[in-house]
Amino acid sequence: MFNDTILRAARGEKTDYTPVWFMRQVGRSQPEYNKVKEQYGGLIEITKHPEVTAYLTATPVENYNVDAAILYKDIITPLAPIGIDVDIVKGVGPVIDNPIRRIEDVEALGELDPHKDLNYTVKAIDILVNEKLNVPLIGFCGAPFTVASYMIEGGPTRKYHKTKALMYNDEKTWFALMEKLTDMSIIYLKAQVDAGAKMIQIFDSWAGALNKEDYEYYLGNAMRRLISETKKLGVPVTIFGIGASRLLKEWDTLGSDVIGLDWRTSIQEARDMGIKKSLQGNLDPAILLAEWDVIEKYATQILDQGQNNGHIFNLGHGVFPQVNPDTLKRLTEFVHNYSKGL
Amino acid sequence: MFNDTILRAARGEKTDYTPVWFMRQVGRSQPEYNKVKEQYGGLIEITKHPEVTAYLTATPVENYNVDAAILYKDIITPLAPIGIDVDIVKGVGPVIDNPIRRIEDVEALGELDPHKDLNYTVKAIDILVNEKLNVPLIGFCGAPFTVASYMIEGGPTRKYHKTKALMYNDEKTWFALMEKLTDMSIIYLKAQVDAGAKMIQIFDSWAGALNKEDYEYYLGNAMRRLISETKKLGVPVTIFGIGASRLLKEWDTLGSDVIGLDWRTSIQEARDMGIKKSLQGNLDPAILLAEWDVIEKYATQILDQGQNNGHIFNLGHGVFPQVNPDTLKRLTEFVHNYSKGL
Repeated sequence: MFNDTILRAARGEKTDYTPVWFMRQVGRSQPEYNKVKEQYGGLIEITKHPEVTAYLTATPVENYNVDAAILYKDIITPLAPIGIDVDIVKGVGPVIDNPIRRIEDVEALGELDPHKDLNYTVKAIDILVNEKLNVPLIGFCGAPFTVASYMIEGGPTRKYHKTKALMYNDEKTWFALMEKLTDMSIIYLKAQVDAGAKMIQIFDSWAGALNKEDYEYYLGNAMRRLISETKKLGVPVTIFGIGASRLLKEWDTLGSDVIGLDWRTSIQEARDMGIKKSLQGNLDPAILLAEWDVIEKYATQILDQGQNNGHIFNLGHGVFPQVNPDTLKRLTEFVHNYSKGL
Repeated sequence: MFNDTILRAARGEKTDYTPVWFMRQVGRSQPEYNKVKEQYGGLIEITKHPEVTAYLTATPVENYNVDAAILYKDIITPLAPIGIDVDIVKGVGPVIDNPIRRIEDVEALGELDPHKDLNYTVKAIDILVNEKLNVPLIGFCGAPFTVASYMIEGGPTRKYHKTKALMYNDEKTWFALMEKLTDMSIIYLKAQVDAGAKMIQIFDSWAGALNKEDYEYYLGNAMRRLISETKKLGVPVTIFGIGASRLLKEWDTLGSDVIGLDWRTSIQEARDMGIKKSLQGNLDPAILLAEWDVIEKYATQILDQGQNNGHIFNLGHGVFPQVNPDTLKRLTEFVHNYSKGL
């Protein structure tokens, strides 16, 4: 039987129990993943094998009993096909040899044809949906600011100074890039939904680097278009980012079904701000390294605040590699059982 | 004539113009600094030469006409004397070979004797105050959470997972460490003020990694004691951190004279939250890489919000190495001139 609890929670319904998944539930905390990674080398190689991608994506559902799967891939996956030479360097992250500097660089970007360029992704979804999953598969993409920051910086950054310098200095290039990335993301998400993804998360991961006035001016239109076009596909849309407390009221205007909170803003604080949408989150991932009674205490607080009403339990950021898989299994069971009483 | 404008602004007075300084005004954006660094090797070596430290500290006051100097040193400066083997690794940051793991590690820490252990710092202040400066010298320290995070992680981190794991799992060790660091910081700040520092900034840099409930529980008492003991020395105290929007109301209860804002929360938003203290900030440092008209537009907004009333102009984080010193000079002049009309 297909378990659609998370879809109903995303749409704001009261559910039998609070559904749960974990950001980076596929990753270095999984022994299965580490074995595969050793064999194939890394993310880019793994994602080119649909069977392997499907196996890794389905494993946490089998092992932990979470209520959704999230496709194993990276937000930079669609960049190579449009002409960005991206590599994932161990211990560093995505590194790009031909970063965006001027309008000509934006104009030179190609169009994404997912069935040609990312056929392995479409195929992995197909396998998952038809052969493996009894819960929704979450598709995703990076939001324009976050993807742009990789393309402009040329590598990971904590400061985004090249990205912001381009944004503040050269609006023509900035808005052309936003339009290109929004177009690309719409095509990309449509391919994922067409193949069977039942829910979409937009990772606006680094948007917390902006204040809300600049977010609205430089990103508002792109985000609204991306979200409304995705919603036309008939799937709920979640927006998530780190350190975005000051953006939550702005995000609330963008049209998503769900807002994902990092651990800094509690569910109750978001409700007190007047946010009525469904909320996802938000256990501090560091707490998973604490003793069980600490984990249970914090999880209980979050579940009590969420009231099993338009609430999807998750972490406030991805699972750390040091987390014991048994902890994720035990936490999933706790969330399911405790929330039945709410 | 001694220019005490910044001290009066810190105490909430309306001043003739809005005083300004820049976090990391001493650093890689300065040609003078880069020359000195080439000669001496790095921060730890430079700070052991009081004449050189004083020269670097005074240079931005001479070159840009800012209203305060901030002593060139790092928040980890007092760690080596209490027994932490700290080194600053190029491209990495502070790295510690004997990180704190258990209560015995905390008990093994020594007491700081600034006149013995950090005589070069005391001497640098003496030179600055008696020979070089006609504006206040800002002394500083790291707040307990931030300093602890270096001591526990053993190196820079974006996730603080070891720090938080210790905090959540082992309260006895955590609170013992907080007490030790608070005692040390009080002694350290007293030495700076006795030597002539006229104002203190507490860098609670990484506190934004916590939500406000955990901040209050795990850090509230330490911060209150640190601030109240420092205020007894008769100097205004500023507290500053990155990504701390959700902590501002909590910080407002800690007893400081000034709250330093990063660029994510505007002066107006902080006032709207009910914060009546003096505010410091908060131009996004990335904007200094934009064209002058962009810089002027954003600086004007900030000055208008600050109303030259309990406002100290600054960046929302440190100056990037890529910034042209002429920009800092021009901005200082603009802040001074524009704010006279407010």
